[in-house]
Amino acid sequence: MGETNRSFVLRAVKDVIFEDRPIPALSDPWDVRVHVSQTGICGSDVHYWQRGRIGDFIPNSPIVLGHESSGTVEEVGPSVKNLKVGDRVALEPGVPCDYCRSGSYNLCPDTVFAATPPHDGTLSKYYTTQADYCYPLPPHMNMEEGALVEPVAVSVQITKVGNVKPNQTVVVFGCGPIGLLCQAVCKAYSAKKVIGVDISQSRTEFARTFGADEVYVPPAKPEEIEDSIWSERVALMIKEKFDLGEGPDVVLEASGAQACIQTGIHLNKKGDTYVQAGMGRENVVFPIPTACIRDLTVRGSIRYSTGCYPTAVDLIASGKIDVKRLITNRFEFEQAEEAFELVRQGKESVIKVIIEGVSS
Amino acid sequence: MGETNRSFVLRAVKDVIFEDRPIPALSDPWDVRVHVSQTGICGSDVHYWQRGRIGDFIPNSPIVLGHESSGTVEEVGPSVKNLKVGDRVALEPGVPCDYCRSGSYNLCPDTVFAATPPHDGTLSKYYTTQADYCYPLPPHMNMEEGALVEPVAVSVQITKVGNVKPNQTVVVFGCGPIGLLCQAVCKAYSAKKVIGVDISQSRTEFARTFGADEVYVPPAKPEEIEDSIWSERVALMIKEKFDLGEGPDVVLEASGAQACIQTGIHLNKKGDTYVQAGMGRENVVFPIPTACIRDLTVRGSIRYSTGCYPTAVDLIASGKIDVKRLITNRFEFEQAEEAFELVRQGKESVIKVIIEGVSS
Amino acid sequence: MGETNRSFVLRAVKDVIFEDRPIPALSDPWDVRVHVSQTGICGSDVHYWQRGRIGDFIPNSPIVLGHESSGTVEEVGPSVKNLKVGDRVALEPGVPCDYCRSGSYNLCPDTVFAATPPHDGTLSKYYTTQADYCYPLPPHMNMEEGALVEPVAVSVQITKVGNVKPNQTVVVFGCGPIGLLCQAVCKAYSAKKVIGVDISQSRTEFARTFGADEVYVPPAKPEEIEDSIWSERVALMIKEKFDLGEGPDVVLEASGAQACIQTGIHLNKKGDTYVQAGMGRENVVFPIPTACIRDLTVRGSIRYSTGCYPTAVDLIASGKIDVKRLITNRFEFEQAEEAFELVRQGKESVIKVIIEGVSS
Amino acid sequence: MGETNRSFVLRAVKDVIFEDRPIPALSDPWDVRVHVSQTGICGSDVHYWQRGRIGDFIPNSPIVLGHESSGTVEEVGPSVKNLKVGDRVALEPGVPCDYCRSGSYNLCPDTVFAATPPHDGTLSKYYTTQADYCYPLPPHMNMEEGALVEPVAVSVQITKVGNVKPNQTVVVFGCGPIGLLCQAVCKAYSAKKVIGVDISQSRTEFARTFGADEVYVPPAKPEEIEDSIWSERVALMIKEKFDLGEGPDVVLEASGAQACIQTGIHLNKKGDTYVQAGMGRENVVFPIPTACIRDLTVRGSIRYSTGCYPTAVDLIASGKIDVKRLITNRFEFEQAEEAFELVRQGKESVIKVIIEGVSS
Repeated sequence: MGETNRSFVLRAVKDVIFEDRPIPALSDPWDVRVHVSQTGICGSDVHYWQRGRIGDFIPNSPIVLGHESSGTVEEVGPSVKNLKVGDRVALEPGVPCDYCRSGSYNLCPDTVFAATPPHDGTLSKYYTTQADYCYPLPPHMNMEEGALVEPVAVSVQITKVGNVKPNQTVVVFGCGPIGLLCQAVCKAYSAKKVIGVDISQSRTEFARTFGADEVYVPPAKPEEIEDSIWSERVALMIKEKFDLGEGPDVVLEASGAQACIQTGIHLNKKGDTYVQAGMGRENVVFPIPTACIRDLTVRGSIRYSTGCYPTAVDLIASGKIDVKRLITNRFEFEQAEEAFELVRQGKESVIKVIIEGVSS
Repeated sequence: MGETNRSFVLRAVKDVIFEDRPIPALSDPWDVRVHVSQTGICGSDVHYWQRGRIGDFIPNSPIVLGHESSGTVEEVGPSVKNLKVGDRVALEPGVPCDYCRSGSYNLCPDTVFAATPPHDGTLSKYYTTQADYCYPLPPHMNMEEGALVEPVAVSVQITKVGNVKPNQTVVVFGCGPIGLLCQAVCKAYSAKKVIGVDISQSRTEFARTFGADEVYVPPAKPEEIEDSIWSERVALMIKEKFDLGEGPDVVLEASGAQACIQTGIHLNKKGDTYVQAGMGRENVVFPIPTACIRDLTVRGSIRYSTGCYPTAVDLIASGKIDVKRLITNRFEFEQAEEAFELVRQGKESVIKVIIEGVSS
Repeated sequence: MGETNRSFVLRAVKDVIFEDRPIPALSDPWDVRVHVSQTGICGSDVHYWQRGRIGDFIPNSPIVLGHESSGTVEEVGPSVKNLKVGDRVALEPGVPCDYCRSGSYNLCPDTVFAATPPHDGTLSKYYTTQADYCYPLPPHMNMEEGALVEPVAVSVQITKVGNVKPNQTVVVFGCGPIGLLCQAVCKAYSAKKVIGVDISQSRTEFARTFGADEVYVPPAKPEEIEDSIWSERVALMIKEKFDLGEGPDVVLEASGAQACIQTGIHLNKKGDTYVQAGMGRENVVFPIPTACIRDLTVRGSIRYSTGCYPTAVDLIASGKIDVKRLITNRFEFEQAEEAFELVRQGKESVIKVIIEGVSS
Repeated sequence: MGETNRSFVLRAVKDVIFEDRPIPALSDPWDVRVHVSQTGICGSDVHYWQRGRIGDFIPNSPIVLGHESSGTVEEVGPSVKNLKVGDRVALEPGVPCDYCRSGSYNLCPDTVFAATPPHDGTLSKYYTTQADYCYPLPPHMNMEEGALVEPVAVSVQITKVGNVKPNQTVVVFGCGPIGLLCQAVCKAYSAKKVIGVDISQSRTEFARTFGADEVYVPPAKPEEIEDSIWSERVALMIKEKFDLGEGPDVVLEASGAQACIQTGIHLNKKGDTYVQAGMGRENVVFPIPTACIRDLTVRGSIRYSTGCYPTAVDLIASGKIDVKRLITNRFEFEQAEEAFELVRQGKESVIKVIIEGVSS
């Protein structure tokens, strides 16, 4: 029997399976085939698995999961100039769509994006993509670090959207993988002070050893106080505790929790920028007049834009961000469902879970 | 008995009175005293009267109401060079605070702003302010037009915050005074198409004769459909009806209604700007993931910044915006409370109410 | 003998010839073949003809001239959805290169651009390009207007680079085709005042009837005064004559003349934007300390970016810019060299010269 | 005889003298009087001394020289809240003018700026200014470091104007005090690579130990090659040597030399930013078409804007920039003219010269 492309497939809500699919052929002369080596699990992977959709993204047919991956080039198309067989690469999951490639950027319904319906992800033995979206790894970076380029690139984009500048004070809500990486990127970018906020004591303790100069665990809300009033009070407590005056320079919200969103807006000072990175539920109660009166710029951040992937590789390669420290759990490929289950449980002690590729 | 400064004073919630106060003296050499001629009523004036506060702004002592005014210069300080007695001027209500004036812009708690606690407004016979915040009116502009410079300046700021550019398609929610003026400013700025949305048939009909190319009255929400789903549907209806493709270039929200805020966000296309101009209630249910996934920039707009007042005078003086058409009701100074009551009722037929100053 | 693609070819400096070339085949499924109907002559066409190069652009082999064209679609590739045979279109001459199309925007040496070496231009019977760079003309726009979409798009880009906003005062140096169109675009964009400057009395007189509110012909330089000092004086004369205070809001330089470049910089007020649109000679004497001390932003503008072509079509289709008035001379295709010769002479009375396509 | 304010005064071109002037009184309630402790010499000080003017700035009467100073507060006005007698401060030389303070920012002819005609500088025993422009020094910063806050603030502004972002490659022309500090600021801001260029071997060697990762000394120009062609070649040599591809991300020009200005423009890649920091002579030969074709943004930088002074204090206080290493020569107050003479000579070995204040 010939070689196959073993894959971890989401068939329906809460229904995953391993399949032996045919090896994908290159479809364009600039395509390459990569043997996937390591894949991190992202909250969105778990979200598809457990709820079957994220906002407008709804899978109508089975899709392979996974999009945080590194691997080794196994085959290159005739037009590829920047890579050769054997090169070790980080994989950027998004590739501009056919419309974009033909110039009709105005018609672009969406980019091809690994593991976003209807596009298969990287949790298979092989993954075929365009050479230009494969970023070579320097020799001293291993494949686990290569897989973590993706969440670093997400965090680079968040700081870009927030226009984070050197010598600024930044408050980051959330000490999960993206929150921790946002803190580390800000620190690597010469922030004056980075403050990490989370309800988990152990997470904030880890944050303080990673990218945060200071951390904060808000007290429990007294039952008799209304949610929105409590958010305003927590914002005041943070300003006072860290001597932030009218507020920090930038607020990055990477938890998606309604209480953090509200607190973040109240924390912002006049004319500031607030970036929503974690998505959480579809609708939240939002203090609109505060955002108006303070002339805030509220931005959402999604994925990455030009330059984020190369910057993420640089940040890891230069030693400015030690991503390996985020990995708390490692799994074999065939244990993929267990790995997903562990992420789903959301334990405080689990930060980043990573799945090794199918060995050759 | 000598002359006095008759004023319309808010003493407490729902408690207004006329007082004969002493004529204010100039306190700085660059101050001028203006005999107020016409004053428009803004929703915020009524808000203070009925609820006693707006967000962080809370009056702790009686204040004179009014901030949309024009008048005639009666006295000028020795350092004033741009004005002389007898000049007819539009009054910009906000003047940078003492901190700003002494250079400590970083400490500025707030600007002096007419009728924002604790600063008295312009609904008195005389109003004293700095010469640089008095904008001379050209001879062919009358005092009513001068009073309406203020809401035009508010609308100029909203389009500035929204970065409205020529040849764009703009959807404006709300056909009250600010919504109508936003539509007119966009049209004067060479918008390709301006679409006004309101639940009032008569308001939208007026809008079509003022600044809007097209108008829309959303159908009533069927009872069985959830609010947030209905908002998404109305956004789709608007896109289809006006052939907006993925959405307009800019959305300006000048109603403050939760349904409009939600619909406006869903209407925005990827990478767009949404401006919140009307404030409404303290917290609204807000579709955060949509704002994130579409990479929107959500901005609040408040008051005006450098250049808005002169631009507003130009727009009226050049005939590009015929503000007089907005005035539906005129009152004598002594009828100020009746005028406020009329605005409070929020009738469809009442657009802009204006109060004549105390005659000399 | 079958049909051929008659073309106007530049073989070497000052050496042009008509050639009967083979009809170009579509090379990609999204390509279309257009029968060229009208082509305007641009200064850059003449520049290649007379000097053989423009900056880094040097033709090493014969190229067809022409890039301001409209035409009728004769053949469409199988993937084309926005056009059908018979559609009348304006042709955008630049198409992103193969690197860009495959995603390697970082490797892009240059875009394919009609009549920029080594790419053939549009002065041939047929021109093949991608469908997305063909903009359908509304029925009431004729082919001459279609050909003039190109210089309007150039002018739209110049105002975009200059961040020209409504109600601003703009000084435009040069009343040739691009200068006149910049003035008209600014006026269409609700400029407060547009001032056109040129050394030709007749050109400025035309400008006043086209897009300029005011025009200026600088006096002749007295022999004894140094060039750079004279430029500074002319800037002062312009400020005084038009009551511009510290200077206009934006300066657009579309003449390329050293005297205008210097005067334009001296005319700018602190913090302003100056856009260099016309290129002129390789090096000019430039008042760098003035640009520094006044904190100017000096920008170059070249070609167009996303959105310029559609906006240019809108500006012509809506009647806001009557481009036909610019056409002073019309030629048959076989008279192309005469047409070029006329442009080369640079007579005051010649504004825009246009060449009809090869009739079928 | 009572105490006097001993000052170092420029009476005319090349004519300086020490004068015992009266102690300045506070003129506003927010003023403070500072006993000057250390003053650095800037090229502009020498420029006034040797040539009597800088561009539009021309002294018509004697002025005290000096503007890079630190000192101790001796007297505070009744409205001062942020300082008390005895506080050690860095002095920001520019204070918004009276027009700005009264709100007429539109009429501001110029800011009060130490040692810019007609305003006296800081080279006197006492200097009186507004409290908000005095930045307290942390205890571990000495007065020499306090005096060097000024050139660091100048460099912070230059990187701000150039929009320098983390992980970028920056080429800085000039390894004098401002060039060296620009390199150090970029490095402190997490630049990926900083390349310093100078014709002095010893200066570039120092640069490599200060803020530059790499340095470059251009070869001597062969006599037979034209200036502008040589500049283009040097740009190519730099790109090749440092593997910069199409060019660095930002070019900062801090030498003011024509050859560097030309080389810098040719070095920039498409869409880049070039900042002119050093001023040099009034007019330079400038490659305008290259700036156009590459769509460059050319900016001038002068002085500093909001936030630069606090950031400069932070950069020194945090140890990110060791400014003391720049000081090559120290003088007593009475030796001020010798100190100026040393700077005028422009020796390679002299970087920063500093003058101690009049002891009490």
